[in-house]
Amino acid sequence: MVTNPVQIPEQQIPEQQISDQRLLKGARARATIARRAADVASVEGLTGLSLGRLAADLGVSKSGVATLFGTKENLQLAAVQSAREVFIEAVILPALTAPRGMPRLRALIENWFVYIGAPVLPGGCFRSQCVSEFDSRPGPVRDALAADRADWFAVLEKEIRRAQEQGALSGLDPHALAFQLDAIMTAANSAARMGDSSGLPTARAIVTALVGAAG
Amino acid sequence: MVTNPVQIPEQQIPEQQISDQRLLKGARARATIARRAADVASVEGLTGLSLGRLAADLGVSKSGVATLFGTKENLQLAAVQSAREVFIEAVILPALTAPRGMPRLRALIENWFVYIGAPVLPGGCFRSQCVSEFDSRPGPVRDALAADRADWFAVLEKEIRRAQEQGALSGLDPHALAFQLDAIMTAANSAARMGDSSGLPTARAIVTALVGAAG
Repeated sequence: MVTNPVQIPEQQIPEQQISDQRLLKGARARATIARRAADVASVEGLTGLSLGRLAADLGVSKSGVATLFGTKENLQLAAVQSAREVFIEAVILPALTAPRGMPRLRALIENWFVYIGAPVLPGGCFRSQCVSEFDSRPGPVRDALAADRADWFAVLEKEIRRAQEQGALSGLDPHALAFQLDAIMTAANSAARMGDSSGLPTARAIVTALVGAAG
Repeated sequence: MVTNPVQIPEQQIPEQQISDQRLLKGARARATIARRAADVASVEGLTGLSLGRLAADLGVSKSGVATLFGTKENLQLAAVQSAREVFIEAVILPALTAPRGMPRLRALIENWFVYIGAPVLPGGCFRSQCVSEFDSRPGPVRDALAADRADWFAVLEKEIRRAQEQGALSGLDPHALAFQLDAIMTAANSAARMGDSSGLPTARAIVTALVGAAG
């Protein structure tokens, strides 16, 4: 249960504290709008985002959204960042409790399957959706998506290398295996979104053949 | 060298022929606009298409484009159909001269690599781009993309089954192998579009491991 915070009349708060509270309120509003932008973009793509549409969805003024983000491109960048945080929280952080190497790689993959099968964002895997959408459009949004993709590959490759140090997955190129896993999971996400119910079990069989059964 | 066709004054042409010529002109205009729509959508997505933008690009009137296509959705469907024809012409038809089974499967894959490495449409593989874009949006456009994807899988699976009858690729599930090939090539397309130069060679190594070297 969250209790309502005690309301303090503004004139009793020192100036620095008012400024901090305003910053905090702005940061919260920014995070709420960015998350909503990620939800919308996961279904309709980053191209479909607009400051006015998000303001209407959230029942706030368009000028308020414009003050926080300025341009559509800034809003797109905030959506990428917000979706990245959702993925880290759902897929990466819970896997860090598994021992390094093969167990953690399998935990990452298992969390990833759960993430695709019961997506946190309504349109499924944001990276799958938006990398394809922006891959031919150079600029800050594509750069942010490419950096996020590179970070995710680095996470996978690190655990693959550790698994190899433990004697598993021998003879495989870590980058090629990460590429293959990402390709299969992206295709599984798309198949699942399109209503092809064979997509997830097919992907699971392929991934199990690549890295063994999870668990 | 193409010589100019002889111009016949319209009053000398029988009525049926005029009507046929008008239909033909309409069909040619439709095909030109649909192909331009596929070009644009391969870069910016189907969401970014508009009747007005295409009219401006092609130097024709917006009302002319509207008469031919009616709605944005019809234009999107025409772009899907046009891109499908480009893929069939570049990847599938040239492979039909190769013997059935393993040689034809390898020819399909080789043509597909060429198609991704030096794309006919400016944004690369249309299916890769637009399936992700529309996978969470039920409706006629997603249905057309899903049907095109299913047809492509059927082409691959048929040659995989024939290769198996010839004694190759034994023990593999044809649908799972087609799924895997499509996933890898889609990821290679996206990597190439994003400027990741390792994408195509990585994909080639993975595909060679799956079905052997092409040729």
